[in-house]
Amino acid sequence: MIDLPSWLQPDTPYLLGFSGGRDSVALLHHLTSSGFKNIIACHLNHQLRGEESARDERFVRRLETPFEIGQCDVSSYANEHSLSLETAARQCRHEFFERCASKYGTSLVLLAHHADDQAETLLFNLLRGSNGLKGMKEKTPIGKLTFLRPLLNVRRAEINDYIEQHDLAYCEDSSNQDNFATRNRFRHEVMPLLNDILDRDPVPALLRAAEQENPLKNVLEDFKLLDPQERLFLPTLRGLPEAIQKEALYRFLKKEEVSEISCDLINRSLTLLTPDGPPSVNLPGGLRLRRKESRLFISQ
Amino acid sequence: MIDLPSWLQPDTPYLLGFSGGRDSVALLHHLTSSGFKNIIACHLNHQLRGEESARDERFVRRLETPFEIGQCDVSSYANEHSLSLETAARQCRHEFFERCASKYGTSLVLLAHHADDQAETLLFNLLRGSNGLKGMKEKTPIGKLTFLRPLLNVRRAEINDYIEQHDLAYCEDSSNQDNFATRNRFRHEVMPLLNDILDRDPVPALLRAAEQENPLKNVLEDFKLLDPQERLFLPTLRGLPEAIQKEALYRFLKKEEVSEISCDLINRSLTLLTPDGPPSVNLPGGLRLRRKESRLFISQ
Repeated sequence: MIDLPSWLQPDTPYLLGFSGGRDSVALLHHLTSSGFKNIIACHLNHQLRGEESARDERFVRRLETPFEIGQCDVSSYANEHSLSLETAARQCRHEFFERCASKYGTSLVLLAHHADDQAETLLFNLLRGSNGLKGMKEKTPIGKLTFLRPLLNVRRAEINDYIEQHDLAYCEDSSNQDNFATRNRFRHEVMPLLNDILDRDPVPALLRAAEQENPLKNVLEDFKLLDPQERLFLPTLRGLPEAIQKEALYRFLKKEEVSEISCDLINRSLTLLTPDGPPSVNLPGGLRLRRKESRLFISQ
Repeated sequence: MIDLPSWLQPDTPYLLGFSGGRDSVALLHHLTSSGFKNIIACHLNHQLRGEESARDERFVRRLETPFEIGQCDVSSYANEHSLSLETAARQCRHEFFERCASKYGTSLVLLAHHADDQAETLLFNLLRGSNGLKGMKEKTPIGKLTFLRPLLNVRRAEINDYIEQHDLAYCEDSSNQDNFATRNRFRHEVMPLLNDILDRDPVPALLRAAEQENPLKNVLEDFKLLDPQERLFLPTLRGLPEAIQKEALYRFLKKEEVSEISCDLINRSLTLLTPDGPPSVNLPGGLRLRRKESRLFISQ
């Protein structure tokens, strides 16, 4: 039995990213049999695997529930735009979902990523150097779309059980392709090795570690650091310990979509807090963080 | 060339945990040849490996710098006290270091753990379920002793180079024993596999992720939350956002050495902040967290 999160609404229309693999097949089946009436299975044929891609598309065309199929020559797209296959595939899928969103009047896209995908992602990102345990979010707004992952707490084994219990047909997962080799090796080599060495399943420990809420996540709101124009209000900021001032500056720059927020940039921004410090600090992209009338804000 | 941290003082007397393996041999040699004059190499014969243990002890006895040798039948000790060999070994070493500390009049114990040990520890603790990236600290006070790890930023390869350059003799590392199999498999199987899959060294990313300073580490001091009797002062605590109140309660309970601080305990402790909430909350071990005169403190 797969639990669905309470924020999923049976009458809301959703797009569903549908590869035809186990995970998306289980999610689609579970939703439609739980009374969800407006699910559109959206399948993009990446044209990366010849006959196998065509086979997957035929599988989708035989669905008894609504579907939408797109075609994209991901390989050519990657060459034209000098992108890796993985990045090209992601961009093509995004554009496809945007077309589906316009056609069906919903910006909500369900994805079937599950708890084991999440654990693999956490470990992969950690080791790739993303400064901590960064995983997938249940809700991710990107551009006009919002991606939703209702299965993030469901284990792969539960999905496999569900597929067996309901005797569902599915396509072999396309992520078994060479271009996803790194992620695949985490699944098929690293996780089983860790399980063997530790003599226990490493997934729950990883998920629990990542779930630790950052207590300073809402530092700007919690300490009422923004004025009505969303500028940083210095008299309040000055009353906080330095470690928290730094976190607030980081969150502020992030909110303002400053790219590449380095420790050095935070330290330089901190000098704006002293009244006789410099009146502005250079930011990447020709912008400046300025102090004026006891407020910090970004301008040219 | 191995860099030593600036907090090491050539004239201070130090004990040095000396297994006779590469790492402790390199540390001892580097210190003595850098002008450190008061280093006592402290070797505990664990008596776990028969002739090999005796061989290591003979190796230490041939040192030209001061040393201290202890004997402990760790296996019998483990049986008598129903401990794992690893825990028993740690306790025996601790008692040995305490005897050395009394004899030589210093409580400072240098350990030769290096950056690769640290990365393996971080990953091991994460996957074992210690809620995040918990590694070894440069300075760890335990009881009357303070353990110091001056090589935490030095890579294993740098130590191996040092050993080669100075043509130093050493004993095979005793951690290659069966009872340390789990840690060993991280070193010999997990780390090389990750290196191969990611096509890069995973150690720097792990170390960097763990180094991220927690900005609420000193929340009790930073927000002046303690009164002169080290009790939590509620009027100040009440003025902070709830996420920070929780972190402060966690740090307070930890400072008071409460064991097993669960999320549930933090949430129950939080109810003490409302003036008409309960006046106390049960803690593990028959203790209570009490509210009195706008302060929280622990008592029977």
